[in-house]
Amino acid sequence: MSLATLDTSQHPNLPSASATLFKAKAAKKFSFEQIAQHIGRNEVATAAIFYGQAKASPEDITNLASLLGIPQEVLEDQLNGFPDRGKSVEMPPKEPLIYRLYEIVQNYGYAYKAVLNEKFGDGIMSAISFSTKVEKETDADGNNWAVITLRGKWLPFSRF
Amino acid sequence: MSLATLDTSQHPNLPSASATLFKAKAAKKFSFEQIAQHIGRNEVATAAIFYGQAKASPEDITNLASLLGIPQEVLEDQLNGFPDRGKSVEMPPKEPLIYRLYEIVQNYGYAYKAVLNEKFGDGIMSAISFSTKVEKETDADGNNWAVITLRGKWLPFSRF
Amino acid sequence: MSLATLDTSQHPNLPSASATLFKAKAAKKFSFEQIAQHIGRNEVATAAIFYGQAKASPEDITNLASLLGIPQEVLEDQLNGFPDRGKSVEMPPKEPLIYRLYEIVQNYGYAYKAVLNEKFGDGIMSAISFSTKVEKETDADGNNWAVITLRGKWLPFSRF
Amino acid sequence: MSLATLDTSQHPNLPSASATLFKAKAAKKFSFEQIAQHIGRNEVATAAIFYGQAKASPEDITNLASLLGIPQEVLEDQLNGFPDRGKSVEMPPKEPLIYRLYEIVQNYGYAYKAVLNEKFGDGIMSAISFSTKVEKETDADGNNWAVITLRGKWLPFSRF
Amino acid sequence: MSLATLDTSQHPNLPSASATLFKAKAAKKFSFEQIAQHIGRNEVATAAIFYGQAKASPEDITNLASLLGIPQEVLEDQLNGFPDRGKSVEMPPKEPLIYRLYEIVQNYGYAYKAVLNEKFGDGIMSAISFSTKVEKETDADGNNWAVITLRGKWLPFSRF
Amino acid sequence: MSLATLDTSQHPNLPSASATLFKAKAAKKFSFEQIAQHIGRNEVATAAIFYGQAKASPEDITNLASLLGIPQEVLEDQLNGFPDRGKSVEMPPKEPLIYRLYEIVQNYGYAYKAVLNEKFGDGIMSAISFSTKVEKETDADGNNWAVITLRGKWLPFSRF
Amino acid sequence: MSLATLDTSQHPNLPSASATLFKAKAAKKFSFEQIAQHIGRNEVATAAIFYGQAKASPEDITNLASLLGIPQEVLEDQLNGFPDRGKSVEMPPKEPLIYRLYEIVQNYGYAYKAVLNEKFGDGIMSAISFSTKVEKETDADGNNWAVITLRGKWLPFSRF
Amino acid sequence: MSLATLDTSQHPNLPSASATLFKAKAAKKFSFEQIAQHIGRNEVATAAIFYGQAKASPEDITNLASLLGIPQEVLEDQLNGFPDRGKSVEMPPKEPLIYRLYEIVQNYGYAYKAVLNEKFGDGIMSAISFSTKVEKETDADGNNWAVITLRGKWLPFSRF
Amino acid sequence: MSLATLDTSQHPNLPSASATLFKAKAAKKFSFEQIAQHIGRNEVATAAIFYGQAKASPEDITNLASLLGIPQEVLEDQLNGFPDRGKSVEMPPKEPLIYRLYEIVQNYGYAYKAVLNEKFGDGIMSAISFSTKVEKETDADGNNWAVITLRGKWLPFSRF
Amino acid sequence: MSLATLDTSQHPNLPSASATLFKAKAAKKFSFEQIAQHIGRNEVATAAIFYGQAKASPEDITNLASLLGIPQEVLEDQLNGFPDRGKSVEMPPKEPLIYRLYEIVQNYGYAYKAVLNEKFGDGIMSAISFSTKVEKETDADGNNWAVITLRGKWLPFSRF
Repeated sequence: MSLATLDTSQHPNLPSASATLFKAKAAKKFSFEQIAQHIGRNEVATAAIFYGQAKASPEDITNLASLLGIPQEVLEDQLNGFPDRGKSVEMPPKEPLIYRLYEIVQNYGYAYKAVLNEKFGDGIMSAISFSTKVEKETDADGNNWAVITLRGKWLPFSRF
Repeated sequence: MSLATLDTSQHPNLPSASATLFKAKAAKKFSFEQIAQHIGRNEVATAAIFYGQAKASPEDITNLASLLGIPQEVLEDQLNGFPDRGKSVEMPPKEPLIYRLYEIVQNYGYAYKAVLNEKFGDGIMSAISFSTKVEKETDADGNNWAVITLRGKWLPFSRF
Repeated sequence: MSLATLDTSQHPNLPSASATLFKAKAAKKFSFEQIAQHIGRNEVATAAIFYGQAKASPEDITNLASLLGIPQEVLEDQLNGFPDRGKSVEMPPKEPLIYRLYEIVQNYGYAYKAVLNEKFGDGIMSAISFSTKVEKETDADGNNWAVITLRGKWLPFSRF
Repeated sequence: MSLATLDTSQHPNLPSASATLFKAKAAKKFSFEQIAQHIGRNEVATAAIFYGQAKASPEDITNLASLLGIPQEVLEDQLNGFPDRGKSVEMPPKEPLIYRLYEIVQNYGYAYKAVLNEKFGDGIMSAISFSTKVEKETDADGNNWAVITLRGKWLPFSRF
Repeated sequence: MSLATLDTSQHPNLPSASATLFKAKAAKKFSFEQIAQHIGRNEVATAAIFYGQAKASPEDITNLASLLGIPQEVLEDQLNGFPDRGKSVEMPPKEPLIYRLYEIVQNYGYAYKAVLNEKFGDGIMSAISFSTKVEKETDADGNNWAVITLRGKWLPFSRF
Repeated sequence: MSLATLDTSQHPNLPSASATLFKAKAAKKFSFEQIAQHIGRNEVATAAIFYGQAKASPEDITNLASLLGIPQEVLEDQLNGFPDRGKSVEMPPKEPLIYRLYEIVQNYGYAYKAVLNEKFGDGIMSAISFSTKVEKETDADGNNWAVITLRGKWLPFSRF
Repeated sequence: MSLATLDTSQHPNLPSASATLFKAKAAKKFSFEQIAQHIGRNEVATAAIFYGQAKASPEDITNLASLLGIPQEVLEDQLNGFPDRGKSVEMPPKEPLIYRLYEIVQNYGYAYKAVLNEKFGDGIMSAISFSTKVEKETDADGNNWAVITLRGKWLPFSRF
Repeated sequence: MSLATLDTSQHPNLPSASATLFKAKAAKKFSFEQIAQHIGRNEVATAAIFYGQAKASPEDITNLASLLGIPQEVLEDQLNGFPDRGKSVEMPPKEPLIYRLYEIVQNYGYAYKAVLNEKFGDGIMSAISFSTKVEKETDADGNNWAVITLRGKWLPFSRF
Repeated sequence: MSLATLDTSQHPNLPSASATLFKAKAAKKFSFEQIAQHIGRNEVATAAIFYGQAKASPEDITNLASLLGIPQEVLEDQLNGFPDRGKSVEMPPKEPLIYRLYEIVQNYGYAYKAVLNEKFGDGIMSAISFSTKVEKETDADGNNWAVITLRGKWLPFSRF
Repeated sequence: MSLATLDTSQHPNLPSASATLFKAKAAKKFSFEQIAQHIGRNEVATAAIFYGQAKASPEDITNLASLLGIPQEVLEDQLNGFPDRGKSVEMPPKEPLIYRLYEIVQNYGYAYKAVLNEKFGDGIMSAISFSTKVEKETDADGNNWAVITLRGKWLPFSRF
């Protein structure tokens, strides 16, 4: 089975922690599932740390360092700041898997808005007070289905 | 409670069925939940029909016509063809609710890809063999949470 | 003194309520300050309703209709739905006043982020649980200063 | 508590002073609040110097050099010229915190313009004769609120 | 000699006053020089009023109405508000004459900045506290030269 | 007083002569005014040579080399070719000073065109047979004003 | 043989003269070659008048009006002003014939520049003091070749 | 007289052969006219080889290597593949000389199409079965004129 | 079974013939297969005529008019000119089916180029001397497969 | 005969495997046809592996390593992850051969959609469950024709 890796020549603007983490992951041959289990976080959140899109807590750093065999102070230095999110995906995405997620937003965006507005009123689903997960289902015919769940707090627009 | 409506001056490029359907919906004061129940489809899919992003079956057309009081042949004429999807949302979305969905793709795109690839191999989650739903949860503190589920068939890249 | 007006040929994609409201405002020669006072909302929020960027409550509609001499059911029809925000300003803004606000974001964006992150941790200032106001100050030399205050709830990124 | 840091691989086009300053800040573990206090400037202005968006006076350079333990002539060389502003934020911003500021401009831009025009006449709020600050408020329920104040001189369009 | 006219099908987003003014100008066969002289303003400012890029004072409106034979209340209605500047030129400009001005900014932008910074310090030349004029020179060989003068107040960046 | 400098990490695509010239200028602490005087050219043209936007004659190269203490053959090598103009300013400009020049073109473009066409006929003001200068004026109240003059040959469109 | 026509729904931003001229051309079944011959101008220039990209002289207007059976004052009204060039082709061009011309510029642009600079020095080939023509050649094998000639005055950059 | 050179910091994406060839050309002080004559190709085609926009035959490589004193196997290695055209000019071109060619396409594009369609039918002028040349003319008044000829095979659209 | 239709509010820039043809097709309930058979052309070419992307011969016009019950002179008027191709699809395509074709070009573009260059030399596959067809295959498991064939003349780059 | 090569300065964002593979291919002077035959895959798929657009199986890696004389563990390291597709072609493509494929999508996109929808219903041709091939035909007149076949599974939109 293959593992997700990072080719830095394809991602020149990711933080330096991304290179450190992915290199160690490749050397240790860990999947994100294994790493996530070890640090007690969701797989997507774990991968997001690797891509510089989520913050690692001090405890996460300790756990990642020990699991992946990275000197703790190196990882602390590289993960200490605040994520500078949004630099990993070029929009519109050219990567086919990511494009399909983008296409879902493009095609169903107003349908989501209409249904959410009618259910919750005028507001938005937060992408910050937010969690997400990925699951795998296999149907009776042996087909695999990916299930992505997005769960965000509803924020009503303030009246002022 | 407010209902989702359509102001055609804001959406000049939606199909003519959109104006017909939203006008009737406003007159009858139906929510998408009510319409969806009546035609036996998911709320998001129902709203997607209204925005020209999903195909209505002949039965859907009959049901919509009778529920909304639209002459059937008018609706047939307007919904008979194949949806020309993608014209409702301008990308990047300016609408705050839709933008947050876009931001999720932008920030977590590669995390999803990494996790999906490790779980399923080289491929994509289909946005065509696909369904989605919206749910409302209220937590112990009375906060509302929106839960969006995306479920797509996994398509491995063909080897050739 | 001049009043803000709307030339619909310059803003073809605003909702139809915008034309209705601005036309009545021009006829009645009310400033936003006067209208805001009458409906008990902030001036910026009031103007945002006129540009289709904020939701009017049923009470706001009644008050606007009576103050501006618009038949209530016309306004109800036009303001009943949920705002489809983001269609008023073309980005980057060409309008000089709005451009300067954009330039502030462009130039000070990372400075705000650094200071906010150090003060609050990893998160964002909400633009939804949010209010804003505009004030006028005149200094000792007779120079006028505009003061814009942005106040948003701090949302920490969820850990998942 | 984490401190704002700079990963130069994510910001290849910032001036060389940015790398120098952020590296020293990380080594000394100073917050912008502490640095600002030391050099007698506002926090946002201080961070703006670090990102190459504001000019440091000769005195600022001396103070920064001594506080951060940077050889004065190195800092003088790097900060001597005039800031080449605008290169830090890619527009539209992908960074979620900065995006929300951008969204405020996008959604409320014309509302600000209308209110400012009615209050001050035809002109703009300067982004040059301008200062800004960030404050933290905590409400009765323990929620934190970020308050950003923008204060700019009003410049009327010249009549010619 | 030809006069500048306006073909509204080429400029669908100009304010309605533009059509009114240009139509009357064409009927009366006035040049901008003549109109400017009559209303006591600079030619470029006069043309800018016609294109919706400058504000006409009440006196300007009276003068324009009488000179051009437009009912005063029509012009008042159309020119009463605040200019919504920036909608006349699409950038980058496709129009060859305007492109060359754009090219001057593109090629000499940093040279202007360097010279202005050394002469005035850290700041900008205002485009608001600003006037401009166009002159015609003919050299000894009979060649014509256009001279455009830009004069703006120097605004130093505030220290805060 | 500060002098204009060049931070090559902010301008990776300028010609190599730019780095050479600016480095020597910084070492010698010359202003563009001083250099311009020495080589007998306008300040803006001199700065334009530094940014790779104007051609240096062989005599200019000799003068620059001797004034700035650069080995002549190094400068000859680097300045020998033809300028590849237009690579210094990213459009639309993010730099506030340059943006205001851009804004002048955006707002007054058609006004200039109308006035120039009426004065000269159908044609353009050349940006090639062209010179420009920057002047400083101080008014009675002690305010500084920047005056930029653009002077270009009028080129009528050929009839064919 | 087919003749070039204009479908205004495909070109909503051409001047109103374009519709007038093309409609008359279609009714009279004239080719541009015939019209050009009649008005004594080059075919390309003639077509450029039809697309609003070249100025018609008073004599041209008289000739076009009589040849095409258009009331002279209608044509005078519509062609009286100065062309607002550049609105006919969307760039990059989607039209295959025009794209190939664009591609020639894209691929050979720097080769032309290098050769022209070496032949003429530092300057440009004017697109204003400029003429162009189209010719048809048939080779020995019966293949047709299109020959487009561009002839522009060489303008050296001014030294200042 | 100056010769065309290449500053690789301005053209980071040209093939490595470009640097090799231009460096040798500068050392040998050859013009493109001289090189073209030596290898028996057109000047523009020769320059296009230097910019990676045309293929050098094995014989061209031998001739270029011997003329320019480049080890043949170095040039073979670098020129052996197929040109990856289109990477030299950024569109829209910022370089003034190249921009004017682009402007000709922008302004006269539909005029060329109309005239070519009427002369040849439905099709395009090939940019592949294509040659081009540059000539210099000097008129009676001593003005220089650049003449660029484009000659392409006419390709009719296939009927299918 | 549904038939392809045209909703002109979604395609405001198609030629007027598109509306005429699609309206008649819908009234007669013909598929493109039936129309293609009747006029003796390929289905894709037939649909391309409907979308204004291919030229109809005089015979095609006669056949289409009689089959679809459109007055011949109406169709002649609308189809007489030369197609102004490229206005139907907005790029990048938002329509999911068309996007996948675009994605194939994006992902396999250089692979096609490499293979074609090695098979044919330096050149291109013509999109003008070109035909295409669509076929349907059903495999043993009952899955349907779409097969699109692109066949274009190979054009070698001219040596000049 | 020439072979396809890779100039990494033209493709800085391809994965590191691309450089490794193309360098070995050039050294061994293999065509893609030869390599494809050796590894038992289609030529286009083989080239796609070289450009990082297709996944190599473990067996492919072994075969490529042995054929091209690359240490197996080097290739394993570089090809082990999942392709990050879409980074090779800049869209719209500037490369002439790839542009023509893009143009086919642009011009015939809706024609393909209409024909496919009528043949298969509402859905898309998969670009994932997909294969493609390139063939060469020579007609009676000795002209070469390139034939590209695209074969994708038909995916109907799910009803939900």
